[in-house]
Amino acid sequence: MMNIDVLTLFPEMFEGVLGSSILKKAAEQKAVHYNIVNFREFADNKHKTVDDYPYGGGAGMVLKPQPIFDAVDHLKEQANSKKPRVILLCPQGKPHHQKLAEELAGEQHLIFICGHYEGYDERIRQNLITDEISIGDYVLTGGELGAMVIIDSVVRLLPEVLGNEESHRQDSFSTGFLEHPHYTRPADFRGMKVPDVLISGNHRLIDEWRAKESLKRTYGRRPDLLQKIELTDTQKKWLLEFENEQK
Amino acid sequence: MMNIDVLTLFPEMFEGVLGSSILKKAAEQKAVHYNIVNFREFADNKHKTVDDYPYGGGAGMVLKPQPIFDAVDHLKEQANSKKPRVILLCPQGKPHHQKLAEELAGEQHLIFICGHYEGYDERIRQNLITDEISIGDYVLTGGELGAMVIIDSVVRLLPEVLGNEESHRQDSFSTGFLEHPHYTRPADFRGMKVPDVLISGNHRLIDEWRAKESLKRTYGRRPDLLQKIELTDTQKKWLLEFENEQK
Repeated sequence: MMNIDVLTLFPEMFEGVLGSSILKKAAEQKAVHYNIVNFREFADNKHKTVDDYPYGGGAGMVLKPQPIFDAVDHLKEQANSKKPRVILLCPQGKPHHQKLAEELAGEQHLIFICGHYEGYDERIRQNLITDEISIGDYVLTGGELGAMVIIDSVVRLLPEVLGNEESHRQDSFSTGFLEHPHYTRPADFRGMKVPDVLISGNHRLIDEWRAKESLKRTYGRRPDLLQKIELTDTQKKWLLEFENEQK
Repeated sequence: MMNIDVLTLFPEMFEGVLGSSILKKAAEQKAVHYNIVNFREFADNKHKTVDDYPYGGGAGMVLKPQPIFDAVDHLKEQANSKKPRVILLCPQGKPHHQKLAEELAGEQHLIFICGHYEGYDERIRQNLITDEISIGDYVLTGGELGAMVIIDSVVRLLPEVLGNEESHRQDSFSTGFLEHPHYTRPADFRGMKVPDVLISGNHRLIDEWRAKESLKRTYGRRPDLLQKIELTDTQKKWLLEFENEQK
């Protein structure tokens, strides 16, 4: 079973997300155990202060090292785990990616550290954590949503978690291509129609249509993804068609 | 006031996040109104089914157009808003970015559509939505976390929402550089020390140290960001120093 600890000043943010859908079922199946910890409880000062003014001046507060170091020490001891991945959510981290989710899904123990407004004392970065991860090039109020996003991307990959509930459809970032379009009933909705080929019953043509649409969408929206894939001769021919259509 | 509607099959996922911290305060200040809608309520069939098998066969279910079209029609009418941004969360969308958050923060009405496991019927993409957004190159169980991430990145930018609570520190993706390191008390924690310059009281040296560390971190971790910035002569000189250090 994977142990996931989250250090946060806003534990109540996690209830709805960890208590729904796949993340809830994964815990019920004992594929994962979540432990949400308010690290304010580890502050060793009378007022339970967790932040302080920055050395050198400037706006904003900085998270003190003591409560976070002590909380991580406690969690390591409690889990008797020697090498947990200790993950700091921050915009300066390496960008999260499906490959990283797959790597983290092989770990036994993940500890997430979520700051909120404040910066982190640099000694946390240098001496406590194993990974700094950013979920994207945008600014969020805190690390909590980033932790939830990474947890979701990892837990759904654990063996037996997906089961029959989730589509076994090829995921975009596993195949390297964006998905082809999907259609369901009715065949005509407010005058908008399903492409004839999908209703033809000819599975060779359907497979070809899907492969071509998948390539077309990737070419149109995320050409950067194509640079990482070795294309077949048919795919190369289709690409030329798309390029000519644009002229 | 900005109106934010979210269409989801898992409304309970949103309570903790929208009910905490900045997102809660923004609603209390009437800077934003959240409306979480279970679009199953709009299904016009007896069993309130919202998905169906894909035309052309294959694994996985596809969200039907009818409940989502009708829900969006209802929300547009209710808000009396002619041009809401109707945002589909999906891995095929354009990558979310701080610039897009800034753009969305200028809108009056945002409608988010969150699928879960299933694909979307293509007619929703073609005829109902204005934006397809992905929060990153990783697969999530549903669009709900993506919607929360975008909402957080947008609402914190609304006038008067941040107030004094959030640091007015320069955000990474606004300046183009990653942030410099921060330190707070104690000056010596378990033998780990704060750099002397920050305790020197010399603000010219402190500013220079911070600017250089910010550039160094960006150079080391996200050299791609530097290509978008026009560097000063001093910054170019520092870059040469960093390059020489690596040799």
